[in-house]
Amino acid sequence: MPSYTAPTRDMQFILHDVLNVSQQDIPGYAELEPDFTGAVLEEAGKISSEVLAPLNPVGDTEGCVLENGVVRTPKGFKEAFDQVREGGWPALDLPEEYGGQNMPYILGTAVGEMFSAANQAFTMYHGLTHGAASAILAHGSDQQKTTYLPKMASCDWTGTMNLTEPHCGTDLGLMRTKAEPQEDGSYKVTGQKIFISSGEHDMTDNIIHLVLAKIPGGPEGIKGVSLFIVPKFLVNEDGSLGDRNGVSCGKIEEKMGIHGNSTCVMNYDGATGYLLGEKHKGMRAMFTMMNEARIGVGMQGLAQAEVAYQNALAYAKDRLQGRAVTGAENPDGPADPLIVHPDIRRSLMDQKSFIEGARAFMLWGAELIDRSHRGEDEAAEGLISLMTPVIKGFLTDEGYDMTVLAQQVYGGHGYIEEWGMSQFTRDARIAMIYEGANGVQALDLVGRKLTSDSGKHVMAFFDMVKGFLKENEGDEALKKEFLDPLKAASKDLQASAMFFMQNGVKNPNAALSGSYDFMHLFGHVCLGLMWARMAKAAHAALDAGTSDETFYRAKLATGRFYMQRRLPATALHLARIESGAEPVMALEAEAF
Amino acid sequence: MPSYTAPTRDMQFILHDVLNVSQQDIPGYAELEPDFTGAVLEEAGKISSEVLAPLNPVGDTEGCVLENGVVRTPKGFKEAFDQVREGGWPALDLPEEYGGQNMPYILGTAVGEMFSAANQAFTMYHGLTHGAASAILAHGSDQQKTTYLPKMASCDWTGTMNLTEPHCGTDLGLMRTKAEPQEDGSYKVTGQKIFISSGEHDMTDNIIHLVLAKIPGGPEGIKGVSLFIVPKFLVNEDGSLGDRNGVSCGKIEEKMGIHGNSTCVMNYDGATGYLLGEKHKGMRAMFTMMNEARIGVGMQGLAQAEVAYQNALAYAKDRLQGRAVTGAENPDGPADPLIVHPDIRRSLMDQKSFIEGARAFMLWGAELIDRSHRGEDEAAEGLISLMTPVIKGFLTDEGYDMTVLAQQVYGGHGYIEEWGMSQFTRDARIAMIYEGANGVQALDLVGRKLTSDSGKHVMAFFDMVKGFLKENEGDEALKKEFLDPLKAASKDLQASAMFFMQNGVKNPNAALSGSYDFMHLFGHVCLGLMWARMAKAAHAALDAGTSDETFYRAKLATGRFYMQRRLPATALHLARIESGAEPVMALEAEAF
Repeated sequence: MPSYTAPTRDMQFILHDVLNVSQQDIPGYAELEPDFTGAVLEEAGKISSEVLAPLNPVGDTEGCVLENGVVRTPKGFKEAFDQVREGGWPALDLPEEYGGQNMPYILGTAVGEMFSAANQAFTMYHGLTHGAASAILAHGSDQQKTTYLPKMASCDWTGTMNLTEPHCGTDLGLMRTKAEPQEDGSYKVTGQKIFISSGEHDMTDNIIHLVLAKIPGGPEGIKGVSLFIVPKFLVNEDGSLGDRNGVSCGKIEEKMGIHGNSTCVMNYDGATGYLLGEKHKGMRAMFTMMNEARIGVGMQGLAQAEVAYQNALAYAKDRLQGRAVTGAENPDGPADPLIVHPDIRRSLMDQKSFIEGARAFMLWGAELIDRSHRGEDEAAEGLISLMTPVIKGFLTDEGYDMTVLAQQVYGGHGYIEEWGMSQFTRDARIAMIYEGANGVQALDLVGRKLTSDSGKHVMAFFDMVKGFLKENEGDEALKKEFLDPLKAASKDLQASAMFFMQNGVKNPNAALSGSYDFMHLFGHVCLGLMWARMAKAAHAALDAGTSDETFYRAKLATGRFYMQRRLPATALHLARIESGAEPVMALEAEAF
Repeated sequence: MPSYTAPTRDMQFILHDVLNVSQQDIPGYAELEPDFTGAVLEEAGKISSEVLAPLNPVGDTEGCVLENGVVRTPKGFKEAFDQVREGGWPALDLPEEYGGQNMPYILGTAVGEMFSAANQAFTMYHGLTHGAASAILAHGSDQQKTTYLPKMASCDWTGTMNLTEPHCGTDLGLMRTKAEPQEDGSYKVTGQKIFISSGEHDMTDNIIHLVLAKIPGGPEGIKGVSLFIVPKFLVNEDGSLGDRNGVSCGKIEEKMGIHGNSTCVMNYDGATGYLLGEKHKGMRAMFTMMNEARIGVGMQGLAQAEVAYQNALAYAKDRLQGRAVTGAENPDGPADPLIVHPDIRRSLMDQKSFIEGARAFMLWGAELIDRSHRGEDEAAEGLISLMTPVIKGFLTDEGYDMTVLAQQVYGGHGYIEEWGMSQFTRDARIAMIYEGANGVQALDLVGRKLTSDSGKHVMAFFDMVKGFLKENEGDEALKKEFLDPLKAASKDLQASAMFFMQNGVKNPNAALSGSYDFMHLFGHVCLGLMWARMAKAAHAALDAGTSDETFYRAKLATGRFYMQRRLPATALHLARIESGAEPVMALEAEAF
C-alpha cells in the first residue's frame, strides 16, 4: 500500500528561504515565523499521513453508494471528517468572526497540498465547502453570512457548487434551470445539475448548495444567470434545521477516479433558494468561487504528482533489477536497485524538478492572493488573475504526466490496482477537466487575461522577470546555470505574446491556435523563475554556512536539471505558436 | 456508448498509394491487389465494428472472474471468439500446412489494428496465441509443430507467454522457476509466474503455456534459462486431451484496464513441460515471440488512439457549446459544435496526424518483416530490429497521450465511465508497460540496437532518408513543406547518434540518460518520413486526377500539420540528449 509523508522541509524552505514570508508587508504575515508555520505544517502532515492517506485506497475501492436517496461515503470517511473538523483545518484562513482562524491563505495552501496529496477525494468535501463559504462571504447579505458561515467554517455543514447541466458545461448561457420569485422574496429552483462533487453524503447534517439558475424574464444567455443558496434542509430563524428542501440526488456517477467523492446528479424540484448577490450577476459571484477553485485544482495536480513521486522513489530504491551500466552498486545483492539506471533517474528527476518548482509557484501564487485580498494590492490581483489559468492548466497537465511517469517506475505493478499507483493517475486525471477544462483555461489566458487592462499584467510579469535578472546579473554562481536559461525562456514567452498581438486582431484563430502552447510556455517560464529564485536562496544558505548542506545542494542539482532538460521546451512551444492558425484550421470540419 | 469504424480507406491508401505492395518483390505480395486487400479489410472491419466493439465496454465492466479454479470471461466473449476463429482470422499469416492462410504479415497487421481498436482485451487472447505459435514454428521439433500448431492456428487452443515472477520482471536472470529433467525426456516445472495475460479462461478446451524456467545445474543468470511448452491438459499421441497438468491460476489481478483479459498468477506445481528449442537458449526462443509481441503492442498504441479519436471527433461535431470566435457557424442552433474552436481543432489534428503517420509506420514495419521473413532480406531484418523498440515505445507513449487528448474533448463526460472514453485511456496505459516497459525499449535501442553490427542498421536508415530526400529534391510541391522539415529532423537524429558515439564509450550514462529522448526523436523522424512519403503519394494522386480529391487534400493538410507542429519536437529531444548525463545523474541516490 502506498504511503505519504508531508514535504514539510521543502515547504519551510519555500516559505522562509525563498519567499521570506514573515518579512513581507502583508497583514497577518508577521506571525508566519518558521517555528509557527513549522508547527502547523507538522500537525497537518501528521493527520495527512496517519488519517487521510490510509483512507485513500479505501475510498477508491468502496466508492460512494446511493441507496434510497441517501449517499453512503466509504468506511472511515465520517470519522476522519470529524477529526479534520475538530482540528479546525477547513477554516484555517476564514475570518474569526465566523469561527475561522484568520490565517493567511498561503498557510492554507500548504496544508491543502498535504490533505490533497493524502486523499484528494476526501479533501474535496471540505475544499468545496471553503469555496462556497468564500462566495457567501464575498457576496452574501449579513443575514446569509451569519446563517451559513459559522456552520460552513466548522464544516458542520458542507457546501457545493452547481453549474453544469447535461447539455451545457463551458457554455453556461445555455442553462435551463430556472428560479421563480416567490412572494416572500425567496425563489423556487427547478432543474437538473450534473457533476456535482460532494452533492450528497452522510457526513454532515446539512449541505448548502450554491446553484446557478435563470430568473424567468431576465436577459438572454449568460447575462441572465443568477446564483442561489439552496440548503438541503431549510434553516429556521433560530439556526435549527427545518424542512427537507426539494433537492435530491438522482444518481452517482461511475467515474475513472476520485471514487471516494460523491459526484452527483442533483434534481431541484421547486426547491427553495435564496438569491446570493445581485440578480443576473450570478457569474460574477460564482467566479469568486471558481477562481479559488481553479487554484485549488492546480494544487491537486501538484499534490498527486508529489504522492506518486514519493512512492515511485521508494520503489526505485527498493526494487532490485539489473545492474548499473557503470558497474554493480549493490554487489552483495542479487541485483542493483532501479534507481541506478539512468532512465529511471531521468524519470525521477523529471518528477522532482517539476514538483518542487510547482510548489514554489503555488505558494508564490498564494502570496499574491494574500497581497491582493489582505493587502488590497491591485497589481498583485492583476498578476494572480493572469496566472490563475496557468496554475490550473499547466500544473494539472504536468501533474498528471508525472503520475504517469511515477506509475511507469513500477513496471507491471504500476498497472495493478493493489499497488496504488493507478489510483494516483486516475485521480489526477479529473484535475485537467473540472473547474474549466484546460483548453478553456488556455482560452481564458490568451483570449481574456493576456489583453485585459491593455496587457498591463503580462507587462508587469515581464518587468518582474527582467528585474530579477538585472538584480542578480553580477551573481556568477547563478548566471550561466539559471539566469541565462530563464532569460532565453522569457524571450520565447515575449515573442509568443508579440505574435498574438501582431496576428490575433486580424485573425483571432492565429492566437487561439497557439493558446494551449502559450499556457505551457508560460508555466515553464514561471517554474524557471521559481528555480532561479530557489537557486539563489540555496546559494545564500550554503554561503552563510548550514548544517543542512545536502538539502541545499540537492536543490541546486534539481534546479539545474529543470533548466537544462525541461525549460528548453519553451522553444518548441514558440515554434508551434508561430506556425499560426493555418496548420490547425486548414482542414475543413467536414473533411475530418 | 462509443463506436468503431474500421479505417479501411486509409489502410488501402497506405498499402497501395504509398507502399505499392502488389508491385513489391516479396513472396506473396503479388496477390495483394487493391480489390483483394479491400475485401479482406472490409470483412475484418465488419466483425470489428459489429461484434468486437460492442463487447468492449462489457469486458471492461464485467471483467474476468476466478471461481473454483475456473476463469469466467465476460458475457459474449466466448461466442465472439468462436466467430473470430470460424472466420480464420487468427491464422491469417500462419503457414497453410498448419491450417493457416499463409498471407503476408502486413495484411495481418492491418487486420490486427482493427481488432485491437475494437476490443484490445479480447484481441489479446488470440494475439498471444499467434505469438506462442510463432515461437513453436521457429524453434519446435516437427512433433511439437504437428501436435500444437494446427490447434493453435485455429485457436481451438490458445497460448500464453510466462516470463515474469514476483521479484523479477526485466531482469529475468533472477528467475526461480525450475524445470527438472525426467527420465522420459520431459521436465517437471515448478514455480510461480505473474502477469500472465489470458493465463486461464473458459473459451477453449486447452491452453498452451510457454514457460521460461531454469534447469538445475545449468549456467547462472540469464544464460541458464530455457523455454518449455506446458499444456494445461496433456495431449495424447492421437491428439486427444489427456490428464490435467499441474498448472493452475492462483489469482486474477485487478488492473487499471483491459479488464476483459484475464491477467493471471499462474502456479506450476511439478507440471509436465517439454523443452522448446535448445537447453539454456530460452531467451533466444522467447525473443521470437517478444519481438513480434513488441510490434503488436506498438500497434495497440495506434489502435487505441484511433478508436478514441473517432469518438472524440464525433463528439466534437455533435456537442454544441459556445460560438466560433470568428462568428457563429451554426446560427440557427443554440451554439456551435465544439469543432469550430481552434483548441479543439488543435487537439483533433494532434490525434489525426499522429494516427495516420503511425499507421503508415506500422505497415511499413510490417513490410520490412515480410521482406525479412519471406524474402530473407538481411538488411530489412536489421532495420526492423533497430526500429522494433521505436515502434513499441514511441507508438504506445504517443498513443496513450492521444487517448488522453480524446478523452479531454469530452470535458466532464470524458471522466464518466458510461461514455467509454476512460476505458480507451485505461486500456492504452498497459501498452507502455508490458512486453518490456518503454524505458527498457529505449535502453534496447540505444544500448544494443544502435551499435549492433557496428551501427550498420542506423546508417542504412540515414541513407534511406537521404536517398528519399535526394530522389525528390526537384519536387517543389514537397520541398518546403515536407522535405526541408524532414531533413532538419533527420539532422537532429544524426547529431544525437553522433553525441552517443562520442560520449557513450567513456561514459555509458551519457548515452543512457538520453535514451528515452532518442527513442522519441527517432519516432518523430520515422513519422516525418512517412508523412513525406504520404504527401508524395497524395500529390501524385491529385496530379493524376482523382474522384476522391477531398481525401488526398485532407492527407496533405494533416501532413503539413505534423511537419509544422509535431516534428519540431526533435530539436527539444536533441537539446536534452546533448545535456548529457550530468543533470540526470548529478544527484546521488541517497540525496533524493
